[in-house]
Amino acid sequence: MKRKSSAPTMKDVAREAGVALGTVSKVFNGIPVGESYRLRVEQAAAKLGYQVNSYARGLKANKTGTVALILPNAYDPFFAALADNICQALARRGCRMLLTVTGSDPDAEQRCIRMVEQNKVDGIIGLTYNPALEVPAAIPFVSIDRYFSPAVPCVASDNFGGGQLAAEKLLELGCKKLLFFRIGTDVPGEPDKRLSGFQAACQLHQAEHTVLILNDREGFEPFRTFLGEHIRGGKPDFDGIFCNTDRLAHHVICMLQELGLAVPGDVQVIGFDGVRYFGYDGYVCSTIVQPVAQLAETSVNILLEEDRSNLPSLICLPVAYAAGGTTRE
Amino acid sequence: MKRKSSAPTMKDVAREAGVALGTVSKVFNGIPVGESYRLRVEQAAAKLGYQVNSYARGLKANKTGTVALILPNAYDPFFAALADNICQALARRGCRMLLTVTGSDPDAEQRCIRMVEQNKVDGIIGLTYNPALEVPAAIPFVSIDRYFSPAVPCVASDNFGGGQLAAEKLLELGCKKLLFFRIGTDVPGEPDKRLSGFQAACQLHQAEHTVLILNDREGFEPFRTFLGEHIRGGKPDFDGIFCNTDRLAHHVICMLQELGLAVPGDVQVIGFDGVRYFGYDGYVCSTIVQPVAQLAETSVNILLEEDRSNLPSLICLPVAYAAGGTTRE
Repeated sequence: MKRKSSAPTMKDVAREAGVALGTVSKVFNGIPVGESYRLRVEQAAAKLGYQVNSYARGLKANKTGTVALILPNAYDPFFAALADNICQALARRGCRMLLTVTGSDPDAEQRCIRMVEQNKVDGIIGLTYNPALEVPAAIPFVSIDRYFSPAVPCVASDNFGGGQLAAEKLLELGCKKLLFFRIGTDVPGEPDKRLSGFQAACQLHQAEHTVLILNDREGFEPFRTFLGEHIRGGKPDFDGIFCNTDRLAHHVICMLQELGLAVPGDVQVIGFDGVRYFGYDGYVCSTIVQPVAQLAETSVNILLEEDRSNLPSLICLPVAYAAGGTTRE
Repeated sequence: MKRKSSAPTMKDVAREAGVALGTVSKVFNGIPVGESYRLRVEQAAAKLGYQVNSYARGLKANKTGTVALILPNAYDPFFAALADNICQALARRGCRMLLTVTGSDPDAEQRCIRMVEQNKVDGIIGLTYNPALEVPAAIPFVSIDRYFSPAVPCVASDNFGGGQLAAEKLLELGCKKLLFFRIGTDVPGEPDKRLSGFQAACQLHQAEHTVLILNDREGFEPFRTFLGEHIRGGKPDFDGIFCNTDRLAHHVICMLQELGLAVPGDVQVIGFDGVRYFGYDGYVCSTIVQPVAQLAETSVNILLEEDRSNLPSLICLPVAYAAGGTTRE
């Protein structure tokens, strides 16, 4: 590693270019000066390796080139992939990303908003759990997975379509009795539509199905009890399970195996998210894959849109099924 | 969500407090004023919900309360956990985190340094692969996992101790013939010491051991060939494998199972990192756990240390063994 000496200043640039300090300032702030002056300043700046101080520029232009991302955490594989893709999508547009993590705590989310408000970010992308979140009207905000109001653009996967796809896939693979299983938060969100889509497909195909929804405060134990009550003579009451997340699917698969059931032999299981081993190896289970790169790209595009008079209120991006060893295909 | 109207200005605070604008400015910049004035300004600011503009303050105090984190990516579980923990460690100190991802590309890393240099960050924490990285001397820098020079503090896990621990654990669990396996980059780094520690323990205990090191450009195929050559009569030449990472261990375990070998029955496998399913469930394999929270805490502490005249050049933090189903304990 090389440690460089102190950075050149505007004064150094003025001296090198042989122009007044005010001229240098004008050039860096986009104020017109004579073409030959502009060239001299730019060449001097390049020669000295002068970096325009974006903070100073941010004060004047009211743009900082910085966007804040608010996530519950950065270790969950779906959130980690979102952070990575949004960071890259912003970098392609010359923007930096401030990452804040909140532990899904509504108060922490509000503190994050206040914190970024202090720093004149150009916008905020948030995956939040606080329905009463207060966001300054002057700061563009894009919500991921949580619909607030028509005035706040929300970007999500096509959760409804994903639920339909999961049910149809299980039926196509020979399942006769389906189970939908979810453990989650009480805060309404776009992912709730996974159940709606699943039910719509089951009704369309007149498929027998059960729905089990647990609150995340209850943990996995009630499901273990449920399973015990629905296994008769070593066979379960259902042969296809759609779990609301891959993480849940993984737990369900482990529990089924502990109870002596084979996956996918006795029961086929599909999760939701598209989580891969170590972030980029094979899928952890058969799954409905969220289009993370497109979620990132779309969120950033909408956030940085100059004309904010005609923004969509909800954009749903297409999901896809991927076999991951826990279905027969 | 509530959308708030435009934020109050310093002028609003001055009017509310009944003091001159200059007095408000002094209070916000820590310049002494009469106690009663300070109180009036602070009360007015609190009443109006005035947020000090940290960018403006950054220009004056030369502090922005912002730290940049440079990572190869944010989706790898170890990097994701690092990002999450460093973000939290900074937040506890009232600092924000700019996250940049580089795809391990040395040029992208240098671009990240230039980008953050434009923004007067208070410091940089980097997990980088560019041995010739140029970092401005004025910006505090802490390196994770890569030792540059005595002048650049490096924070890492006790990789040597982890390698020792892995070998000793395999021997303790009855293994007689050990294999060390690594696929990795050519760029020297602290994780190289995992092999040194493994070899030191094998020599101390006079244990038979083989070392296989592949470059990551070669992929996993040469290892499959190696395995084929070292399995005779359905039994492999070794009964304990220490893999340089959990990801590698996971691939090795899958390959062994494809070849009809049982893990941990025929071969016991230990990885390195402490990767958990979905970031917080059980361990993916038996593993040497990196102390991610302590790595984050220590990096941030050293980065923000005011007295930079007496910093350590290398801090190694203690690792621990965790059973994860791929060893007999």
